[in-house]
Amino acid sequence: MADINNYTVSTHYDQRLYIQDIAGSIAHAKMLARQEIIDQRDSTKIIEGLSQIRSEIASGEFIWDSTLEDIHMNIERRLFELIGAVAGRLHTGRSRNDQISVDIRMYLKDAITSIVDGIKLVQLSLVDLGGKYSDVIMPGYTHLQRAQPVLFAHHMLAYFHMLQRDISRLKDCHFRADVLPLGSGALAGVPYDVDRDFIADELGFRSITPNSMDAVSDRDFLIEFHSAASILMMHISRMSEEVILWSSREFGFISLSDEFTTGSSIMPQKRNPDFAELARGKTGRIYGNLMGILTIMKGLPLTYNRDLQEDKEGLFDTIDTITSTLHVYSQMMNGVKLYSDRVASLSSESYMLATDLADYLVVRGVPFREAHGIVRAVCMHCEENTTDLQSLPIEKYREFSTSFDESVYDITAESSVSARSVYGGTAPERVLAGLEEATGILKKGIGNG
Amino acid sequence: MADINNYTVSTHYDQRLYIQDIAGSIAHAKMLARQEIIDQRDSTKIIEGLSQIRSEIASGEFIWDSTLEDIHMNIERRLFELIGAVAGRLHTGRSRNDQISVDIRMYLKDAITSIVDGIKLVQLSLVDLGGKYSDVIMPGYTHLQRAQPVLFAHHMLAYFHMLQRDISRLKDCHFRADVLPLGSGALAGVPYDVDRDFIADELGFRSITPNSMDAVSDRDFLIEFHSAASILMMHISRMSEEVILWSSREFGFISLSDEFTTGSSIMPQKRNPDFAELARGKTGRIYGNLMGILTIMKGLPLTYNRDLQEDKEGLFDTIDTITSTLHVYSQMMNGVKLYSDRVASLSSESYMLATDLADYLVVRGVPFREAHGIVRAVCMHCEENTTDLQSLPIEKYREFSTSFDESVYDITAESSVSARSVYGGTAPERVLAGLEEATGILKKGIGNG
Amino acid sequence: MADINNYTVSTHYDQRLYIQDIAGSIAHAKMLARQEIIDQRDSTKIIEGLSQIRSEIASGEFIWDSTLEDIHMNIERRLFELIGAVAGRLHTGRSRNDQISVDIRMYLKDAITSIVDGIKLVQLSLVDLGGKYSDVIMPGYTHLQRAQPVLFAHHMLAYFHMLQRDISRLKDCHFRADVLPLGSGALAGVPYDVDRDFIADELGFRSITPNSMDAVSDRDFLIEFHSAASILMMHISRMSEEVILWSSREFGFISLSDEFTTGSSIMPQKRNPDFAELARGKTGRIYGNLMGILTIMKGLPLTYNRDLQEDKEGLFDTIDTITSTLHVYSQMMNGVKLYSDRVASLSSESYMLATDLADYLVVRGVPFREAHGIVRAVCMHCEENTTDLQSLPIEKYREFSTSFDESVYDITAESSVSARSVYGGTAPERVLAGLEEATGILKKGIGNG
Amino acid sequence: MADINNYTVSTHYDQRLYIQDIAGSIAHAKMLARQEIIDQRDSTKIIEGLSQIRSEIASGEFIWDSTLEDIHMNIERRLFELIGAVAGRLHTGRSRNDQISVDIRMYLKDAITSIVDGIKLVQLSLVDLGGKYSDVIMPGYTHLQRAQPVLFAHHMLAYFHMLQRDISRLKDCHFRADVLPLGSGALAGVPYDVDRDFIADELGFRSITPNSMDAVSDRDFLIEFHSAASILMMHISRMSEEVILWSSREFGFISLSDEFTTGSSIMPQKRNPDFAELARGKTGRIYGNLMGILTIMKGLPLTYNRDLQEDKEGLFDTIDTITSTLHVYSQMMNGVKLYSDRVASLSSESYMLATDLADYLVVRGVPFREAHGIVRAVCMHCEENTTDLQSLPIEKYREFSTSFDESVYDITAESSVSARSVYGGTAPERVLAGLEEATGILKKGIGNG
Repeated sequence: MADINNYTVSTHYDQRLYIQDIAGSIAHAKMLARQEIIDQRDSTKIIEGLSQIRSEIASGEFIWDSTLEDIHMNIERRLFELIGAVAGRLHTGRSRNDQISVDIRMYLKDAITSIVDGIKLVQLSLVDLGGKYSDVIMPGYTHLQRAQPVLFAHHMLAYFHMLQRDISRLKDCHFRADVLPLGSGALAGVPYDVDRDFIADELGFRSITPNSMDAVSDRDFLIEFHSAASILMMHISRMSEEVILWSSREFGFISLSDEFTTGSSIMPQKRNPDFAELARGKTGRIYGNLMGILTIMKGLPLTYNRDLQEDKEGLFDTIDTITSTLHVYSQMMNGVKLYSDRVASLSSESYMLATDLADYLVVRGVPFREAHGIVRAVCMHCEENTTDLQSLPIEKYREFSTSFDESVYDITAESSVSARSVYGGTAPERVLAGLEEATGILKKGIGNG
Repeated sequence: MADINNYTVSTHYDQRLYIQDIAGSIAHAKMLARQEIIDQRDSTKIIEGLSQIRSEIASGEFIWDSTLEDIHMNIERRLFELIGAVAGRLHTGRSRNDQISVDIRMYLKDAITSIVDGIKLVQLSLVDLGGKYSDVIMPGYTHLQRAQPVLFAHHMLAYFHMLQRDISRLKDCHFRADVLPLGSGALAGVPYDVDRDFIADELGFRSITPNSMDAVSDRDFLIEFHSAASILMMHISRMSEEVILWSSREFGFISLSDEFTTGSSIMPQKRNPDFAELARGKTGRIYGNLMGILTIMKGLPLTYNRDLQEDKEGLFDTIDTITSTLHVYSQMMNGVKLYSDRVASLSSESYMLATDLADYLVVRGVPFREAHGIVRAVCMHCEENTTDLQSLPIEKYREFSTSFDESVYDITAESSVSARSVYGGTAPERVLAGLEEATGILKKGIGNG
Repeated sequence: MADINNYTVSTHYDQRLYIQDIAGSIAHAKMLARQEIIDQRDSTKIIEGLSQIRSEIASGEFIWDSTLEDIHMNIERRLFELIGAVAGRLHTGRSRNDQISVDIRMYLKDAITSIVDGIKLVQLSLVDLGGKYSDVIMPGYTHLQRAQPVLFAHHMLAYFHMLQRDISRLKDCHFRADVLPLGSGALAGVPYDVDRDFIADELGFRSITPNSMDAVSDRDFLIEFHSAASILMMHISRMSEEVILWSSREFGFISLSDEFTTGSSIMPQKRNPDFAELARGKTGRIYGNLMGILTIMKGLPLTYNRDLQEDKEGLFDTIDTITSTLHVYSQMMNGVKLYSDRVASLSSESYMLATDLADYLVVRGVPFREAHGIVRAVCMHCEENTTDLQSLPIEKYREFSTSFDESVYDITAESSVSARSVYGGTAPERVLAGLEEATGILKKGIGNG
Repeated sequence: MADINNYTVSTHYDQRLYIQDIAGSIAHAKMLARQEIIDQRDSTKIIEGLSQIRSEIASGEFIWDSTLEDIHMNIERRLFELIGAVAGRLHTGRSRNDQISVDIRMYLKDAITSIVDGIKLVQLSLVDLGGKYSDVIMPGYTHLQRAQPVLFAHHMLAYFHMLQRDISRLKDCHFRADVLPLGSGALAGVPYDVDRDFIADELGFRSITPNSMDAVSDRDFLIEFHSAASILMMHISRMSEEVILWSSREFGFISLSDEFTTGSSIMPQKRNPDFAELARGKTGRIYGNLMGILTIMKGLPLTYNRDLQEDKEGLFDTIDTITSTLHVYSQMMNGVKLYSDRVASLSSESYMLATDLADYLVVRGVPFREAHGIVRAVCMHCEENTTDLQSLPIEKYREFSTSFDESVYDITAESSVSARSVYGGTAPERVLAGLEEATGILKKGIGNG
């Protein structure tokens, strides 16, 4: 029958929560003594016992017994061994339902802080990379077709800003997770004069939950985290797609450093962007974990149902995947080498300047749609005659519109980029300012979660 | 070939955005004149034309032409009909890529405001219902097994607080959506001296986007909305599950008013909770729409790709579904009749007081775990002898522990509930305060989004 | 840099495929010799080496080196240690791209066979349970409202048939997975005179893949499996919901044996149906894994991309979860005790016979809709006068329709059930035949996958 | 209160089922008369009435009344108008629960047949395209890096075979849907001597459902269809990705005909592959609909619950999306123009022949892994000296291995492709045979579902 019991056991994965679980118990024990619910001496013993258990776990000495269902039971049993019956006083005014919720919330808060740090390191790589090639113009794409020239650094900053929103979302999630459920008991609250605010202070929660039934059955903060993680991973899948495209021979925009490619064992020149492919693939498991927790919660009556135990493995998997992926990305992007010449040469393709040509006419008084039509005709003429905009004689231009004059040849990738000096645009001074601003944000940020 | 063209047409659903689209165009036209990019007179003509089109659409006179791909093309064509070639000046310094993003953001912001209002009406129903039966004690459940008595109003407030978090999430989503992308052009910014801040002010955006490439390919705000909507709908699926359970003959806790049940055409006494079932079922489409947009965005290279056109139908469906469901719920909950006597009688079942019995011993100095063991033995004795805790003689109690005395009979559902006077607990004074607080929140809230 | 390499390593999970991987290699080595692509002696050495490695892994002696990326590299390295350079001949006419596909297909085929056996054991429990209580009538529900009496065994057979479809789907999936990809090489086929049919025979594949590019990038069979697993788990979630409902005090239909409930540590009479709750919750991870693999595959260009490595962990998780859940269910259902008296007494509630009353009139010539209307009126009369159909005097009946006579009192739960003797209906003889047929199916089935 | 009623109304979408619904009713009416449950004359009247209603709906005259909840009620009401009270006899021995299941199953079966036809037309385009360029060699990719030369037609056949599996899955789904539920009544079977087999024959079902409770709550066939549709759409997303890549300037492999691209209004040479992008994007809604129905079904107790009404809109959306996408694809692929010269020239890149070089050595007796190492060294030498395999002098080759001789220069893209003559490989004779076989399959197939 042993294998049936395995079905309900969570010890093998919830032991990950031991730091949070013991911190919560210590705070609880302190509070119980302060409120004179238990003796100061008992509290001290309990805290000493818990501290010892924490050391045992940290050092690997602790023996996890999977016949004891979960982390709580494992720690409780060991506490009994260490300090005897007084251990039983720890659980006054507490149930596993509110205890596990404290544990996960604390764990998640720490994880978010560390993920935010990971994001910032990726942002730093992007800003560095943009800065390194700050004057390189590349083709900007819509529909994977070359559309208009942009600065490579502008493209890097696009990712920077995506990630900035991810941080913002994660912080909001942190805020909503940062509420202490302890004191909710099994579901109805506890019949002791506990000081919930004290515990919140001790454990660094900003607030306490207002309704016990809600508190023990709430996993919103997890879903919100999975959702923020999914958006973050979606961003990374987009970056990955571009890393893969740009590394292809056909694009030939970048090369990755050797650690981030795997060659075929036979074709040394083959540089497979495996890390980017794997990151793109891992988007699947992140989305899947989100769908998993949403499915679990659907249609559950209040309050605690055992289904909720299924909240943890997906969470840990998403945290681990996001963390390692960010780690890989910050280093991989550091090693990107841009083939500036190739990229720049593609940007000078004349058709990418068609929009600028139309804007040239608009400035000279032609209504926008009319200007569009004229330029369209010019481009078609060029295509049919296999020439290009730079080579078309001015007389020909003027057959399409007398608003054209010699200055039409001043339109270049450089002029195109420079003209877009609106806030948010790709003009060099804007992009340089953007890089500086980004650097400023990162400087104060890293290490502050 | 007509049917192939249908594949790319969005007119039939994006026409829903006409108010936002025209407001955006009017603000743009104003700005163009203010910045002297176009003539004041042209701007006025354009604005008058757009206003007329808005009236035509509102009154149903406007003829949508599905051979014109989308709302923008339909409005543009009509503007040409109304004011001639000057219409072509409107599109100076703008592209469909930034224009559609403005439209959706404005639409979503309005939708969120109205959804938040809808949530508040549901909250109001819950608070009213709790207030109406504020002294009724009901069984609180874990694992769908009766666990401890709680106040019915406490249960209602649990939902209130879930919904409160939904509002908080939706407002954060609103905040992040509330950034103007106009000025980003097709992808690289625009080469005109546009005043983006002016437009933001006109249209009520709090800020402008910092990177044009990001701006035209960002749909984060939609995913975030779908995710907040999924959590909200998950909450409603949980309420629905309980409405369905409580309406069953087996529970017999509540009845719904006739409008919210459908009888079988033959069994008039049958009161099927169809609205609650449908709401629970509709959770599926909300989750599905979230998964849809996540899938769409995965692995897309920058910037605009036509895949993004698929962002709208799921959005509209989720907004409509959430809106109608909230509407149904606020009215359905208003009509709930609680069978107080039935509910109360179940709450007095003695085993639900086992926890209180243990706490009774703890207060008398027995360590918690030991108290647990004693009460377990008492309960087993009762079960084996088919008696209950209230009927067990004091002598028998004292065989289990000498800490028991006559006061053990003072433990009742009422005493159990009252004892849980911790903040967040189910004690009457806490719950009444909670109802009041909730009422306060709602009073200032409704109508303010 | 070690931790970056971890990102691409799959050794810790793909080692699960060792039996399949080695069997595939042995068959390949045999074939290479048979076709005289390598020497018979070399082939023999290779096969002996592989056999030894298999023993080492089975006994736990084998040392997995996670600096070697995957299972293939680990086994290859060990083969070199054991037999020297000749080991290098094994990889003639093969690549990791087709090799891993063989491994997963074989693994999946075995898993399906064992899952089908697991399903049959659950079916057996259901049929046994139905047989044990074959004469018990219970309320049948629609909308969780009592609707018509049915046999308990009929309800059990409903699950039997759901599971029967699961088997059918899994077998179709097995059929489509049962095609050998070896010989596809990296993507283009191999330039050796390999005998693909021989290997297919050796490894028990029914066929060989017709296109090498498709073969190395095809994961359809995995998605199809995840989908079949999702439907199966959905069925189990429905059973779980009913086990939970029926175990509640409010329904009071069944009790589970002690191994399949967990009491609160304090309330020994509390019987939480934790296994059923967990099974219901685990539906989330199964759905999530399906969504994961669908996401991974979306939009991938041909042929092999490293994203595909992410196909395995979700697969293993789904197989393990399904396997253990089936195991739990077959035993849990064996221990279900039905409270026949309670269940039967609820079935005699008169309103559940309203449909029969209408059919009574129809048989006497009243059009169905009219009969409906009459019975509706009768029922409403009963409800208003707090009487019931059995107690209503015949005179009263005849006020509603003169087609009523004394025989109306012959309508009972028993008569209702018996009347539904159509194939698929709940009449006792149909249900008994159904139980027998099911037993027949199971008798020949178990152990035959 | 009108808008609340809208919540439960399905008329606006389930009217799509009218052909199936009326066919089912006619068969039912026939059977009722045949079994003498109703009068032959009544049956005839009913059938005439239903036929007239069908004509009215087909011609658009029928007035759908959304205050009548669904299609059944709308048709029933009209039948009463047309033939009076006898209409009420139609519903003898039937309920909406089994009726709607018949309707959806018939609708789905038709849809599958038509989707299979659509797939075959896409396959035909692919085979035609492959045939048109049957001698063109292109680079085969792994990791989006050029790996080995393959025939373009081989690539087309890879898609053909993916789609072939889709057909196989859809047919299995059709088989499992092809079972008649009528006779199950509301949930327990019907108390009339109905002839279910007769109805099955009339309506073209291969079999009848064996358990009434299962029958009215089973939506497996829908989930299975959504799953098969998801895999199909995933395949199309992969094709789309390649169409988009190949249409890019960087790849420059193909051009699409004008109807299947949209230019920017200003850049006439820009050929955005909008159809392929939209198809890729639409994958999201297909996955979302699958997730929707899985969510709906999770944890529902037997038998019919109103949640099931939510099964239809997602189904219709998936059917419509798949149908239009296949239609677009078959025509779009017909118009693909392959730039054979460009494609062929890329295939002659020497490093793509490295594998062949290793195989060359293996054939000369060098163990595979050793051969690999030698070729790797050769390639690295070439790369460092910016030469290539074709230009490397034979003396240099022989420094790496004396197994090399002049024949090494015979290795070309052509020889590489030809060497892979294994079944499933890319050798011209294999591919030509594959094209023929595919043509054969298609010839007998189209129009036969």
